[in-house]
Amino acid sequence: MARILRRAFGLTPALRFPKVSPPCRLLAPGNNLAASGNLVLSGIGARALTTTNAEKSKSAAPERRPFSRVTEEDVEYFRSVLPGRTITDPDLLESNNVDWLKSVQGSSEVLLRPQTTAEVSQILRYCNGRNLAVNPQGGNTGLVGGSVPVYDEIILSTSLMNNVLSFDGVSGILTCQAGCVLENLSLYLEERDYIMPLDLGAKGSCHIGGNVATNAGGLRLLRYGSLRGTVLGLEVVLADGRVLDCLATLRKDNTGYDLKQLFIGSEGTLGVITAVSVLCPRKPNSVNVVFLGCETFEQLLKTFQLCRGMLGEILSAFEFLDSECMRLLNTHLKLSNPISDCPFYIVIETAGSDPNHDSEKLHHFLEEAMNTCVVTDGTVATEESKIKALWSMRERVTEALTHDGFTYKYDISLPVEQIYQLVTDMRAHLGGMAKSVVGYGHVGDGNLHLNITSPAKSPALLAAIEPFVYEWTAGRRGSISAEHGLGLKKRNYIYYSKPSQAVALMGDVKALLDPKGILNPYKTLPDKTEADGSTLGS
Amino acid sequence: MARILRRAFGLTPALRFPKVSPPCRLLAPGNNLAASGNLVLSGIGARALTTTNAEKSKSAAPERRPFSRVTEEDVEYFRSVLPGRTITDPDLLESNNVDWLKSVQGSSEVLLRPQTTAEVSQILRYCNGRNLAVNPQGGNTGLVGGSVPVYDEIILSTSLMNNVLSFDGVSGILTCQAGCVLENLSLYLEERDYIMPLDLGAKGSCHIGGNVATNAGGLRLLRYGSLRGTVLGLEVVLADGRVLDCLATLRKDNTGYDLKQLFIGSEGTLGVITAVSVLCPRKPNSVNVVFLGCETFEQLLKTFQLCRGMLGEILSAFEFLDSECMRLLNTHLKLSNPISDCPFYIVIETAGSDPNHDSEKLHHFLEEAMNTCVVTDGTVATEESKIKALWSMRERVTEALTHDGFTYKYDISLPVEQIYQLVTDMRAHLGGMAKSVVGYGHVGDGNLHLNITSPAKSPALLAAIEPFVYEWTAGRRGSISAEHGLGLKKRNYIYYSKPSQAVALMGDVKALLDPKGILNPYKTLPDKTEADGSTLGS
Repeated sequence: MARILRRAFGLTPALRFPKVSPPCRLLAPGNNLAASGNLVLSGIGARALTTTNAEKSKSAAPERRPFSRVTEEDVEYFRSVLPGRTITDPDLLESNNVDWLKSVQGSSEVLLRPQTTAEVSQILRYCNGRNLAVNPQGGNTGLVGGSVPVYDEIILSTSLMNNVLSFDGVSGILTCQAGCVLENLSLYLEERDYIMPLDLGAKGSCHIGGNVATNAGGLRLLRYGSLRGTVLGLEVVLADGRVLDCLATLRKDNTGYDLKQLFIGSEGTLGVITAVSVLCPRKPNSVNVVFLGCETFEQLLKTFQLCRGMLGEILSAFEFLDSECMRLLNTHLKLSNPISDCPFYIVIETAGSDPNHDSEKLHHFLEEAMNTCVVTDGTVATEESKIKALWSMRERVTEALTHDGFTYKYDISLPVEQIYQLVTDMRAHLGGMAKSVVGYGHVGDGNLHLNITSPAKSPALLAAIEPFVYEWTAGRRGSISAEHGLGLKKRNYIYYSKPSQAVALMGDVKALLDPKGILNPYKTLPDKTEADGSTLGS
Repeated sequence: MARILRRAFGLTPALRFPKVSPPCRLLAPGNNLAASGNLVLSGIGARALTTTNAEKSKSAAPERRPFSRVTEEDVEYFRSVLPGRTITDPDLLESNNVDWLKSVQGSSEVLLRPQTTAEVSQILRYCNGRNLAVNPQGGNTGLVGGSVPVYDEIILSTSLMNNVLSFDGVSGILTCQAGCVLENLSLYLEERDYIMPLDLGAKGSCHIGGNVATNAGGLRLLRYGSLRGTVLGLEVVLADGRVLDCLATLRKDNTGYDLKQLFIGSEGTLGVITAVSVLCPRKPNSVNVVFLGCETFEQLLKTFQLCRGMLGEILSAFEFLDSECMRLLNTHLKLSNPISDCPFYIVIETAGSDPNHDSEKLHHFLEEAMNTCVVTDGTVATEESKIKALWSMRERVTEALTHDGFTYKYDISLPVEQIYQLVTDMRAHLGGMAKSVVGYGHVGDGNLHLNITSPAKSPALLAAIEPFVYEWTAGRRGSISAEHGLGLKKRNYIYYSKPSQAVALMGDVKALLDPKGILNPYKTLPDKTEADGSTLGS
C-alpha cells in the first residue's frame, strides 16, 4: 500500500538548495497533504521560519540546533567515500525529504546511499567530527515524522544495503543487511519454508532495519511476539563511527548486558542499524481467515475470549474494525461488506501445521460463537485470493481514511476491555465537529487505531482532540504510542506514558551514545526535560 | 530440586563477624563442596587472604574494592527502617552467604529483608550515600556465583516481597513483587487457567525478580520465547534509591527507549528489581511427554527437524541427554531407563488446546520417526504422574552430577548442529583425566549443558578444560553463557563471546546507572576492560 500511495502522490520537483534551512512543514499530526489536494511545499526555499498555529503545537519542529551546515568540501568528501552514491540533485532528494503521510517536509541537500557497514562507519565518523546532523532513513513509511529530516540533516539511506547475509534452514535464523525490504525477505523465506515473524501493511516498502529501529508491531505480534524477542542480533554503527557488533545468531546469550535492546525502538537516535539477525517461524501448512460481525464491543470481547480458548495455539491474528470503517471502505474504495451490516467486524486468522485439525477447531469455535450469539454473521476463507480479500477489509482502512479528509491519527495501547471506550467517548466529546471518528486495530494486543477526519485542516478540531485523547489514555495507564513510535510529531507527549525519571534516564542514555546529538535530532525525546526534583542524572 | 538439596546439605553454624572481610572462597567453577563431603568454611574469620591455585584463576574474586564497612550506626539505621527485618545473627545469615552449589562463600554481616519498594529505596539511598556495597538476592539458586556476597556486601533479600499485585484474566497479565517464588506464581496462575511463560528446575526456590535479573531460560523458552518478550514491565530501584517505574501492563508501548530491557539479565548490577509484570500464556488443555532413544546425534537432529514440522505449534520442549547422563541417573539416583539403552535420549513435550488433535499429531510423528528409523525406541506419557517421571530423567541430571564428584559446569549456546561436537571433542581432549564428561540440554534453543566431573578438585583437570572450552565456543561464535549469566565465576570470560567495544559500552552503562559501583560488585563485568584502541567511552 505504501508503494501504491507513493506512486499516486508523486511530488513535482520543487526542491532547491536553500541558504537558510527552513524547518520541516508540519501541519498537524497525521495531516495528509496529498489527500487534501493541497500539496504545496511552501517551506522550501523560504528564508525565514514561518510559524503557523499548528507549528506552535507540541508536535511542531523546535528551533534548528547549531549543527554545522554542509559545505562543498563535505560533499567532496562524501563523493570520495561513496562515488555515484552521494546524491545532491534536489529532484532526486525530493521523496526522501517528505514522509509517507506527506505531513512532514525537511530540506536536506544531501542523500547518502552506502552499501557497507564500513561506509556507514566512515560517514558517521566524519559527520560527528564535523558536527553534521544525520537522518537515518529506511523505507520512509513511518507515521510520526521520524524517518525524514526536520531541517537540513544529511539523509543516510539504507536502500542499497539489501543483501541477505545468511540463512540457517535448521534453526530458521536469518541474517541480513538493514535495507532489505520486508516483503522481499518474506518471499525469500517462503521459498525456504519459513516466514518473517512480523507482517505490516507497509511491507512492500519498509526496511527490516527501520522495522527494528521503530520496534514495529503489525499483524503477527499476537502469535510470534515482539521484535524484542525475535531479533537475536544487531550490528550498529554509533554516532562517532564505531561499529558495535552484537550480530549474534543464537537463541540464548547471557554474557553481559543485552545492548542490542537499546537500539530496538530508539528510532535511529542512538545508532544506525546496519545488519539484523532474526529468528523466523516455520511457514504454516494451513491458513484460514474468518470475517465476523458483532452487535456490541462486549460481544466482540467475548468472541476474543472464546477464540483464545478454542483456537489456542493456532490463533495468529484477532483484528477489528467498526461500522464507520466499513462505511469508509464502501464509500471511498468501493469495497463491499462480505457479511450483513453490524456495528463491529472481526478478522481472525489461524495458522497451523495440520489443515484438518485447524478447520475442525475453527468449525467448533464458529459453532459455539453462533450458538452463544456472540457473533451474528460471518464468512470463512481458506483460498489465498479470498483470504486476501478478507484481509483487505482490515488492511485498507488506512487508505480509505486518506480519501475521507484530513486525518488525525492516534495509536493507543490499553487494557483490551477499554480500547473501544475511547472511540465512544471521543465521539461524544467532539459532537458534530469531526467528519468521521473511526476505531480499528489489534484486539489481541490491546492496540486501538483511533482516526478522526475533517473536511479540511481544523485547528479547532485538533484543540478538541488534544490533549483530551492523551489525558484519557494516561488516566488509564495506557500508551500514547503502541507501535508507531514518537518520532517528531509525538516526542513532546512522552510524559503522558512515561514518568519523568524514565525520560531523564533516556536523555542520559542518548548523551552517552551520541554526545553531540547528531543522530536523528528532534526525534523521540522531548524538547525539554520536565523539571522534577526526583529526575535522574544531570 | 533446589529446595531438596538445600535441606539435605544444611550448613552448620560457623559464621562470625570477621574484623577483616575475607574474600569469598571460590574453589573451582561448579565445585560442589557439599557433594564432596568437605564443607569447611575456612574463609570465614580468616584475617588474611588465602590464595589457592584456583583463586588465581579468572574465576577468582578480585581484591575487595574500597567500600565502607558496616558500622553499628549503619545497623541502627537499618533497624529503624526495617525493625525485626534487619538480620545480623551469623547463624541466620549463613545460608544467604553461600550459593546453591556451595562453591562461593561470602562473609556478609547484615541481611536486610524489605517488604516494600519504598523500603528498598530508603536502604539503597542510604547505602549509596555511605558507599556501602549491596548484594541483591532472590532465591539464591544461581549457578555462577552471582547471587551471594563476595566479601562483606550487605545482602538485600527480596524474600518478603512476595505479593501478587494484580492479575488480568482477560489479557493474562500478572503483576507481582519481585520476591514471589516461581512455583507459587505457577500454582496461582493454574487456578486461573494460565501458566507462567517460564519453567525451571529451581522453581521451588527461585524468585521471579531473580529470574528476570538473570534472564532465566529454562524449559519453555522454545515455545513462549525469552523474558525479553514476555516481561511487559518492571519497577526498579536504582543504586541511589530513585525508583524507576516502568511497570507497564501493556503488550505494546513504543514511547521512548525500553529502559526495562537494561535490567533484564544484568544480574542486579544496574538496579534492584522490585516488581514485575509478565504476559502469561493460557494453560494448555492437553500435555503429552515422549521419551525417545537415538543411535547418533545426527539422528537426534533429524528427529528435531521432523518434530518441528509435524508437531508444529504444539511443540513445547525438545530436550536431550546422553548415555553418560543416563548412567549417572541409574548409578546415583537409582532411576531406571524407561526404554532400551541408546547413546542419546530425547524428551519431547507437547502442549495444546485439543487432546484429540494433539495425540493424533503425536501419533503421526512417532510413526514417521520409527518408519524412517531416526529413533530406535520410545515411550509416551499423558498422565501427570508418568509425565513427571519422564521429565525427571531430564530434570534430575544436575542432581545426579552432584553425587558424581566435583563438577565443572559449562552452559554453552551454539548453532544446534554443533552442540554435541563439543562434548565429543572435550572427551577426546581430556582422555582419561575426567571421571565423567556428560552433555544434556535444550536442543530447541541450541543450548548445551556440558558437565565434567572428577573424584576430587583437580587444578590439572581445570587447566585442561579451560580455556579449551571457551576457545572452542568462541571459534564457532557461540555463547559461553547461554542462560546462567556471568556472575562472579564467568565475568572475566566475557570477551570470548562479546567484542571489546561492547564490553566497554557495558562499563559505560554501569557507570551511568551506578557511579559508585555499589550494586552487586565483582559480578557480570570483567575486572579489567581490554586495552583496545577502538573501545568506547571514557
